[in-house]
Amino acid sequence: MIRSLDDLLSHARKGRRIRVAIAGAENRSALQAMVEAVRQNIADGVLFGKEERLVHFLADVPETIRSALTIVHADNEREAAFKAVEAARLKKVHILLKGKVNTDVLLKAVLDGESGLRIAGKLLSDIFMFEDPEREKKKLMIITDGGVVLKPTLAQKIQMIENAVLVSHALGNSNPKVAILSAVETINSGIPSTVDAAIITKMNHRGQIPGCTIDGPLALDNAVSREAARIKRIRSRVAGHADILVCPEIESANMLAKSTTYFAHFRQAHVTVGAAVPVLIPSRADSAETKLLSIALGKFIYKYC
Amino acid sequence: MIRSLDDLLSHARKGRRIRVAIAGAENRSALQAMVEAVRQNIADGVLFGKEERLVHFLADVPETIRSALTIVHADNEREAAFKAVEAARLKKVHILLKGKVNTDVLLKAVLDGESGLRIAGKLLSDIFMFEDPEREKKKLMIITDGGVVLKPTLAQKIQMIENAVLVSHALGNSNPKVAILSAVETINSGIPSTVDAAIITKMNHRGQIPGCTIDGPLALDNAVSREAARIKRIRSRVAGHADILVCPEIESANMLAKSTTYFAHFRQAHVTVGAAVPVLIPSRADSAETKLLSIALGKFIYKYC
Repeated sequence: MIRSLDDLLSHARKGRRIRVAIAGAENRSALQAMVEAVRQNIADGVLFGKEERLVHFLADVPETIRSALTIVHADNEREAAFKAVEAARLKKVHILLKGKVNTDVLLKAVLDGESGLRIAGKLLSDIFMFEDPEREKKKLMIITDGGVVLKPTLAQKIQMIENAVLVSHALGNSNPKVAILSAVETINSGIPSTVDAAIITKMNHRGQIPGCTIDGPLALDNAVSREAARIKRIRSRVAGHADILVCPEIESANMLAKSTTYFAHFRQAHVTVGAAVPVLIPSRADSAETKLLSIALGKFIYKYC
Repeated sequence: MIRSLDDLLSHARKGRRIRVAIAGAENRSALQAMVEAVRQNIADGVLFGKEERLVHFLADVPETIRSALTIVHADNEREAAFKAVEAARLKKVHILLKGKVNTDVLLKAVLDGESGLRIAGKLLSDIFMFEDPEREKKKLMIITDGGVVLKPTLAQKIQMIENAVLVSHALGNSNPKVAILSAVETINSGIPSTVDAAIITKMNHRGQIPGCTIDGPLALDNAVSREAARIKRIRSRVAGHADILVCPEIESANMLAKSTTYFAHFRQAHVTVGAAVPVLIPSRADSAETKLLSIALGKFIYKYC
């Protein structure tokens, strides 16, 4: 079982390289991450963007690395997004990484009913993975969904959980503990997220959401701190041990994830799952390291997509 | 201007002691905080609870401190809450601290139309204050509302902001920067919190919400990190410098606040404002230090209530 981002990287260095398509490769941190992924034997790259600019960007890259990178010219953002998505649909690449293209443009290409990467019946959802270095026992935790699904219905929450559970399984955690988060740990009809949490928990008890152990509603403290769960006398196999934190809507997930980055300074990896290939949509403010870790994460899960 | 929790404590040690009522004083960490508040010359205490148990609890407390603590017997939680609220209404105490009484019981007593502490036209809202020790320039930041208002309307959000601004003013920040948080920094009609943010920002521009500078929608990274705001090219006097973080509903505020405690390990103070006196409703898992800091915070703001 992969328990840390360093583990993730070192495992990703083994085995055959995968191929990563960068949509709009004229982006310094995306290219830096790509070069590093080649250097570390994780991936080869197919770079979609303006050829002239990409040749210029790669001028200083050593030939051993340069030879693992293929440039495919695209006149503009839309064409870069379309061509990168096409390569993914034709299985010429295993992961799609957003570079210098607008997120909306890329998602439109990914979600296109004809030429996109949708899988019938599957929801596209956002997986934010982080590592709390101060936990006694190391592990990787997931927050979902801070990036794609705005206000999930009950059915969509279940699909978000299935996507996150798939990622946990891919990293060797065969029975992840899933906390359905709210502001409180009691059912309160004035807080609909607590009601959804109760329903989802019961569905898991009845075997309707397999491959994981779910409990909710839990507040964040009960979900991640054994001590807080003990003080509040919460009896639960998930409380204090959550691997997957499911938030009620995009705002709370986004703030919680960004808080781990901007307040706690945790490292992270970040992937959108539910399409034919893992799609990496980093924030403009993300570092090259985050992008490299996200490529490594994608290498684990593309086979399950 | 008070820029840190240590500043808050050292300023609170000066001047006349205030009187704190503990509703249900048979609570070890509340009493510890109270004893410490007496020792540091911050406050005297009026302890509402079972007399026999309280005498027992105080057996080891030195006489110099014991003499600053008054016990008022109450047979049960409800009576303790009611008597403590009554003392606050009659201005016999300046702050109300929840001890071993259920939050619902205390809030019911506080919100009672006849015997409670409501002020006509004022909203009761939750102020979570924290300090990020790694910021270049020290300051105290506020998150609201993770504890009281479940799903604020636009009008309630404005009252939440007014309450938080009052707290900032009390700490000497005469023009706090207020970020209205969402998951993104652009207006998106599919995310109602971005629409509210735009409206509130414009109301501030028109002078309808005075005493502060408001901007939103902002995502957490743009609100607190100058670097993230720069990369995203957000032109704003608030971005990267926010003093007050206004969340769209209780879940996101609660998770964000708990994340600063359980992931980032920041210290905190915590107060409910909008009633006739500051009401401190700590979580059961809160430390005595948090309760002491909350008493110190209450000492700054009771005059403004």
